[in-house]
Amino acid sequence: MKLLEEKIISDGLILDGDILKVDNFLNHQMDTRLLDEMGKEFKRLFNDKKITKILTIESSGIGISVMASRYFDYCPVIFAKKGKSANVTGDVYECRERSYTRNVDYNVQVSKKYLDSSDTVLIIDDFLANGEALNALISICHDAKANIAGCGIVITKAYQKGEKRILDMGIEVKSLARIVEMKDGEIKFG
Amino acid sequence: MKLLEEKIISDGLILDGDILKVDNFLNHQMDTRLLDEMGKEFKRLFNDKKITKILTIESSGIGISVMASRYFDYCPVIFAKKGKSANVTGDVYECRERSYTRNVDYNVQVSKKYLDSSDTVLIIDDFLANGEALNALISICHDAKANIAGCGIVITKAYQKGEKRILDMGIEVKSLARIVEMKDGEIKFG
Repeated sequence: MKLLEEKIISDGLILDGDILKVDNFLNHQMDTRLLDEMGKEFKRLFNDKKITKILTIESSGIGISVMASRYFDYCPVIFAKKGKSANVTGDVYECRERSYTRNVDYNVQVSKKYLDSSDTVLIIDDFLANGEALNALISICHDAKANIAGCGIVITKAYQKGEKRILDMGIEVKSLARIVEMKDGEIKFG
Repeated sequence: MKLLEEKIISDGLILDGDILKVDNFLNHQMDTRLLDEMGKEFKRLFNDKKITKILTIESSGIGISVMASRYFDYCPVIFAKKGKSANVTGDVYECRERSYTRNVDYNVQVSKKYLDSSDTVLIIDDFLANGEALNALISICHDAKANIAGCGIVITKAYQKGEKRILDMGIEVKSLARIVEMKDGEIKFG
């Protein structure tokens, strides 16, 4: 998505060689007009699928998922909760995730009430690098016996292992911006 | 807002006398069509104010804020981050908050880059009860010397102390559903 690539170049910050900070338009301050365009683009990319639910994870995936939902006939958006221990009451699908950013383990939880075998799920997240968060969401869909339409990612670091790991499961991954190299402050898309 | 009150009656769950669970349409699974209607209603309620930013707090305030932003000319949405310790790099506005639900203290943080004295801020959140989260957001706006247009709340428990506390500061509070009593499983709006 040209508009997003340009935004990353103009507003993104590269720190310590491999950290891309986009908190001025994506995950702290949000450019909602851009989010809306992204939602429209996800619809174009997954237009052939009859999506019944969008599944994401708190917090940075929520904004883009809600905007995207407008283009999928306002299908419900579920955001998985992260917590050190259980905080969703009742029966939950649960998966343990390792956060490399914060160096800590999390439980990822979705209430069983909101996902089942009648669902076709579009999984949306802001970033795909090693793929832990996405892996947890996929595992939860499998537990729920829900059909996975694919994964819609805003920014994928294609040189890390997450994308390949998910493609190897036979799950479609579509990224609005796909970074194949980040070196000396330069970003290469592909 | 009639539509929301009806939704709370039909889909809300009252637990242990005073806990209202609305996680099937507001803070776990989200009814995005309803969120869109709520955004439109916030615009009607704050139509006389020239809003430059919407400020909310992760995670449950994000969906409604992003939808609302569409009706405020797609103004940027900032979501404050919660953490036990600092996790936003660089200079931040910070406020300590007590969560009674989880019985723990949090830091609430907003990067100084995204809020200053030129801003007129609409603060949005899903719930107002004791008002700790909202108080932290107000305190951050004060630190930033930003003008506060008011607080837009989805559900206010008007019998708890938060609403009065904020009105007493001279800040406008507008709630889409205002609960004045919850007794024996019955909800009274007013």
